This record gives sequence, C-alpha cells and structure tokens, in this order.
Amino acid sequence: MSLLVVGTVAFDAIETPFGKVDRITGGSGNYICHSARHFTNKMQLVSVIGDDFDTNELKYLQSVGTDTDGIQVKEGEKSFFWSGKYHLDLNRRDTLATDLNVLADFDPVLPEKFKSSEFLILGNIDPALQSKVIDQMKERPKLIAMDTMNFWMDIALDALEAVLQKVDLLIVNEEEARQLSKEYSLVKAAEVIRKKGPKYLIIKKGEHGALLFHGNKVFFAPALPLEDVFDPTGAGDTFAGGFMGYLANTKDLSFENMKRGVIYGSAMASFCVEKFGPQRLKELTRQEIEDRVQVFISLVDFDIILKD
Amino acid sequence: MSLLVVGTVAFDAIETPFGKVDRITGGSGNYICHSARHFTNKMQLVSVIGDDFDTNELKYLQSVGTDTDGIQVKEGEKSFFWSGKYHLDLNRRDTLATDLNVLADFDPVLPEKFKSSEFLILGNIDPALQSKVIDQMKERPKLIAMDTMNFWMDIALDALEAVLQKVDLLIVNEEEARQLSKEYSLVKAAEVIRKKGPKYLIIKKGEHGALLFHGNKVFFAPALPLEDVFDPTGAGDTFAGGFMGYLANTKDLSFENMKRGVIYGSAMASFCVEKFGPQRLKELTRQEIEDRVQVFISLVDFDIILKD
Repeated sequence: MSLLVVGTVAFDAIETPFGKVDRITGGSGNYICHSARHFTNKMQLVSVIGDDFDTNELKYLQSVGTDTDGIQVKEGEKSFFWSGKYHLDLNRRDTLATDLNVLADFDPVLPEKFKSSEFLILGNIDPALQSKVIDQMKERPKLIAMDTMNFWMDIALDALEAVLQKVDLLIVNEEEARQLSKEYSLVKAAEVIRKKGPKYLIIKKGEHGALLFHGNKVFFAPALPLEDVFDPTGAGDTFAGGFMGYLANTKDLSFENMKRGVIYGSAMASFCVEKFGPQRLKELTRQEIEDRVQVFISLVDFDIILKD
Repeated sequence: MSLLVVGTVAFDAIETPFGKVDRITGGSGNYICHSARHFTNKMQLVSVIGDDFDTNELKYLQSVGTDTDGIQVKEGEKSFFWSGKYHLDLNRRDTLATDLNVLADFDPVLPEKFKSSEFLILGNIDPALQSKVIDQMKERPKLIAMDTMNFWMDIALDALEAVLQKVDLLIVNEEEARQLSKEYSLVKAAEVIRKKGPKYLIIKKGEHGALLFHGNKVFFAPALPLEDVFDPTGAGDTFAGGFMGYLANTKDLSFENMKRGVIYGSAMASFCVEKFGPQRLKELTRQEIEDRVQVFISLVDFDIILKD
C-alpha cells in the first residue's frame, strides 16, 4: 500500500568527533524515504526545495520508488539548510545554523493522486501544516503517524494539540514526551499524551531503545549496543521510515505487527548512525537488514517458564 | 548452594520528592540478603555493625535463612550511616552524610564454615578487603561476583585492578564502566574491562535496563517502565542479590541461565524502588515475583520469523 511522506528535504553540514561533511542531503522526508524504501516501493513525497538541490538525489529517490511530484521546486531560492556539531558523547549537539530558506513559507499541496494514500507519516514540521495535509486527504488513511519537537510545544501548542486529535500515532523522544505531558514518568506521560488523541505512542530513548504504548499494552524494543556511533543525524526519521515502510508493506495494524515494525525501525536506525547522512541506507542490502534483526532477536531473547 | 555475601549493614536517612525517613536499615550486604532470600535460604553474611544496630533486624535476616555469624558487632561504636537526598528526577542524589563509624577499620574475617561457599558476592567495599575475602576461601567458589564504585577507581585503582583479576563477574553502572575502561561506547568498555579479569560483566543502566556480556554474547534486559519510583536506594544491590540468589538456587552457570538471573534481578530491583529501604522486599511474595517476571516477558516479547 502507498505511503505518503510529508517532511523536509534539505542540506546538512555535520561535524562529529569522527569527521565532518559540509554538504550532505538531509531532512525528515528524505531520511524517511531512504529508510522506508527498503520495505515498500510505493512512496509519495511532499516537500519543498530550492533550485540548488541535487537533481541526482531526486532521481535516486525516484529510482527506489518515490513519487516526487509532491516536491515543490522554488526557482531562485535555496533549500532548507541545517548545520550542527555533536559533542564527544554524541547525545548532545549544538545547532550552528538553521537557514529555513524555502521552508519559511512552505505550503504543502497534495497532488490529487496522493489524496487516497493508505499510510501517512508527517515529519517534524509546523503542526498547522501537518493539520493542513490531513485535511486534504480524500479518505482517512488507515494510519496517520506524526513526529514533532519541543520547539512547536513552545511556540505553537494550540496547533499541536489540534493535530494530535487527528492522528493515530505520535513518535517523540523522552524529553519531548515529558514536556508535552508535564509528567516525568514515561508511563504517566504516555497516559496523558494518549488522552490528547493518538491511540498509539512511540517514545524513542536513543541509545536506550524505544517504547510502544497502546491501550494497556507496552512493548520495549532495545537499541543495539554499538561499538561506534559515527553520526546520529536522521536516526529518528530513519526509525520512523522503517516502521511505517514495514507497516505499509505488511498491511497489518495489529499490536503484534506494530512491535515487529518497531524492531525493523530500530534496526534501520542502527544502520543510519554508521555513516554520515543517509549514505549507509543507500548501500544497505535486504540480507544485512535481516541479519541485524536477528541480532535484535538474540539480544533480548531469554527463556523463563513460569509455574502456574 | 550457599551464597556468601560480604557488604555493609547500615542505617540510612533518605529524602525523596515523595517523603523522608530518618533511620531505616540499609547497606549493600543488607539489601543483597533481603533480595537473595527470595531464592535461597542458605546465605552467609560477613559485615560489621555497632551496638546501636536493631537486633530485630538481625533476627529477621536469620529467620529468612541468613547465617549472621560473620557479622562483627563493635561494642560502644556506631553502625555505618549514610544520608542522601534525591532530586526530582530521582536519577541524581546529593550525599548529605557518610559516617563510616565501624566501617573505618572493617577487617572481614570469615568464619571457618563460610570458607567453602560455592557462590560469593562482594558488595561495594574497599577492593583490598574484597581481595582479602577471596584469599580466605578454602576452595575457589564456582562464581565470584563483585560490585565497586567510582570512588575506588579514584583512590585505590591498583587494589581494584588486583581484585578484578580474581573475580568472574563485575557488576557496575554505565558511568563506572566508562570510568574504569576510559571508553564511552559500552561495547568497547565491556571489552576493556573483561581484559582486566572478569569473564562476565553486567552493566546496569538504571531505568534503561541492564546488559550482560560474556565472550562474544550480549544480553539486554529491559527495566520496567514504572509509574512511580518512590526510593531508588538499594536497587543496584537488590538486583545483584536477586541475580546471585537465583544462580545459587538453580546451580546453573550457563549463559542462558545467567540471562534468567538478570531478569529475576531486574524484577527484584523494580520492587525495591516502590517503598523506602528494603521494606517492599520484606513483604514480597513468590507469586508477586513470578507475576512481575511475566510482565518482563511480555514487555520484550515479539515474534519475527526470518527467511533463510
């Protein structure tokens, strides 16, 4: 089934303790497609770029199954640019530049053929725009997922609360879950957030794994203990892309299958951090993904038979 | 099989955002026995107390299967006293007082009947004393486990390195593993630490679970996402006590069984934090433990069948 992706397509400049790149493609929409394409070749991408964007990169996205007709190209303007420098522990980073450029007046318009997509993932953009995308759909997708960030909680909480009422799944990190819910305990935070709308909630804990909440059920997916993290940029979007791509491909929205999606998403994120930008995701094979999932299986596998 | 426990038996004063107690029993040896007794009734405790210690508490330890003949009682002296105040997030605490008292010149002497114990757990004390305990054993135990802390890495690194060569298993937290190995990545840290002696390593990640390393195998045990943590004091020792108690009871040192031990230890720690001090461990039933382990099983359970 088709997966509609709305998010940024951008250039990043990244410095980590292991090296730096001055210009590599980034953006939430870009990472989501780079990850989801390993599971589905029916992606539709809505975004905005300047005329400086690399046409080969667009061709690449098309070649792996992305319909890019929803990408607006602004002549004479520059693509969104983000620059950041990671600290030695890679858990903290300083943003050096956020040049919105074409993103400043982004107005997502869905091509007619995108309006019946069965799966929708809204990358981290202005919640008012996320709402606007949902409102353009002809039929309600089977699953609407969204990402957001602290920034929108600070400056656009009403719009954020409004879009939360329209989605099925929110994907945030620990810090964001705590700010949105005003609760420190993630169990309590999950309860508060799900009362705002989304039936499903994924809380990403970075190197500590991810939690999936639904009803009174909780699933915990570990993160792989990695020898080296090279560049964490895009890991969250890569997780979301793997998760949604897996669901769109398997067409099964049971909690059991969502757990599998979380594992595949986690596996994809563990690859993403191995090289700069989406580089590792480009060269990745299906066999490598299956092997990595096997590592996840072994990592948490134990066998206790309880007496009744 | 018998489990020899060496560690402190003390009084704690604890303040958390949820309340305070001025005087409750604590100490690593105390918590380990309170936890391990749910799995074995063949414990031997080596420690030191003043004549101010609560005799009812000693009687309680005896009643649940602890041979307390290795506890030295110093007449006219005071028991070890620790006082701490936890921050709102409960991950950080300020130590308000550390009165060593009887602990200042603790010289662990093993009663003859303790010297053939099959399992030995060395709580966090001076590494020179940990060595001294091992050297008193008549036969080498089947498993020697030890805890330690940053403090000993700072002031007694040589003694710590010496005892590490004599043990099978080191149990430390993330921060301690990083300081001891001088590596940030826990995978690399585990490699460095195991070259120092211990074949097995457990890295506790608090609310994020625990990792067990052996050979080229890694096991990840989640922590339970808890609604409320009331008092984290003693959670690490409770984990160690549950782990060692489970192994001493099952007498099986395979990696598969150690993984089960980590899950039981994690379950015990999740109970410990529900009330002040070892209170919750006192009232705990076997059925509650099995039910909690079932929650751990469900938490990480997923089902992916990979194609060959």
